[in-house]
Amino acid sequence: MTFASKLATAQQTNNSWLCVGLDPVMERLPKAVLASDNPLLTFGRAIVEATIDLVSIYKPNLGFWLAEGPTGLRALQTLITEIPDHLPVILDAKFNDIGNTAAAYARAAFETLGVDAVTANPYLGVDALRPFLAEESHGVFLLARTSNPSAPNLQDKSVDGYPLYETVARLATQWNAENPGDCGLVVGATYPEELERLREIAPDLPFLIPGIGAQGGNLEAAVIHGPAANGLGPVINSSRGIIFASQGPDFADAARTAALTLRDRINQFRETAK
Amino acid sequence: MTFASKLATAQQTNNSWLCVGLDPVMERLPKAVLASDNPLLTFGRAIVEATIDLVSIYKPNLGFWLAEGPTGLRALQTLITEIPDHLPVILDAKFNDIGNTAAAYARAAFETLGVDAVTANPYLGVDALRPFLAEESHGVFLLARTSNPSAPNLQDKSVDGYPLYETVARLATQWNAENPGDCGLVVGATYPEELERLREIAPDLPFLIPGIGAQGGNLEAAVIHGPAANGLGPVINSSRGIIFASQGPDFADAARTAALTLRDRINQFRETAK
Repeated sequence: MTFASKLATAQQTNNSWLCVGLDPVMERLPKAVLASDNPLLTFGRAIVEATIDLVSIYKPNLGFWLAEGPTGLRALQTLITEIPDHLPVILDAKFNDIGNTAAAYARAAFETLGVDAVTANPYLGVDALRPFLAEESHGVFLLARTSNPSAPNLQDKSVDGYPLYETVARLATQWNAENPGDCGLVVGATYPEELERLREIAPDLPFLIPGIGAQGGNLEAAVIHGPAANGLGPVINSSRGIIFASQGPDFADAARTAALTLRDRINQFRETAK
Repeated sequence: MTFASKLATAQQTNNSWLCVGLDPVMERLPKAVLASDNPLLTFGRAIVEATIDLVSIYKPNLGFWLAEGPTGLRALQTLITEIPDHLPVILDAKFNDIGNTAAAYARAAFETLGVDAVTANPYLGVDALRPFLAEESHGVFLLARTSNPSAPNLQDKSVDGYPLYETVARLATQWNAENPGDCGLVVGATYPEELERLREIAPDLPFLIPGIGAQGGNLEAAVIHGPAANGLGPVINSSRGIIFASQGPDFADAARTAALTLRDRINQFRETAK
């Protein structure tokens, strides 16, 4: 099965375009969780359990797990094995390295951690992406326009009259055609006009849209411009707005409520957009 | 002590601009090493022991350790604690993430793993770099021109009449001035003209120069254009050419011989360039 078809099936099963970002920060974990033997795993399990029928995909960001060293990485590895097979997992690690190093990262992601897709940074060009694009069961989402304030430093520089991130989108459509993979784009919801423009340039590519929630992104634009031409819905990610909806003992219930609310808001925009 | 001054002292102590890349690949480890309890750690220890008086810095690439999961990360963490304090360590992880995620990666590198410097990708702009630039005891080497065949896909795109990697170098000099950090550039030795040009644009920044050895980079160009205006020598990295000089039981001796040969070749070019 291709990554895109696995994602499409999960979107239909749970009637959801929602992705929950599994981004634990030790200082923000509820007290009861911190008292457990393995706080990161305890927290991750509780969030997954509370949201499992509301999402189409999960997205752990490697940084938060790596910050806790080997213990954190082990917790992530265990958590990923516990996520049901019908729900894909994207490892958000923004990989960017060359040759045999890229191959080592691909092994880390797809074999050692066992995820379905990764994020990657396009700055090194296509050979840095080939190990991730090599199998169609794996997806790669390339950074195009990120959601942070200093994204314009490089991404908006004019190349042949167009911003650099549009060049990335054009290259991504070529690289996707060249490789039998599922190449998508990361497009921050904080820049709705760029989202619309990128959808025009790359009608067929799956979109991963972060920046919803804590970062204040435009959800309606994400719903309108997010779907690919073949109907595959976008991966609309919220992390802190869901996982830290409460830091009290009710954190899992609060996460469920926040996820439900966001999924339903997305679905309302989908209805309106029909 | 700043990162740059620590590096300068190590360069003087060992009369060396050599960096050995600690990039183990399980399939390529000698049989005797594979038979040990912890092959990655055994191998890393043997390479460090064999080269410790010949280098000014070590550069483990995170990918190779991450490929072996929590065990690999633990081995890297242990190995770093065993490298003597007077020799700096760069974690080659090409970090690129935003806000609190960048802060988590900085914690992973500087606290959890305890390295002195990291590599980072400039595509997300300066806010993604601030957690790495925040303390002058830590260095950050930004990818400018990488050493792989598809580097031109984006890095050579023309921005205001100059290739994109020159824009990165100009931004890096601004970002270095803005932050009390030690911001350097990664410039592949496989492109000697670009190396010369980048040194003109960024005379004050430390250079990390990969691509020597297996990748066939131009060592003379690295020596001539590598030093910063203040005399700080470049970090000239070789990985496979040293650590896999032999895959037999003599691998450590062979690594020492390869490191000694490369250090001396660098020093001969330094003499000639005087």
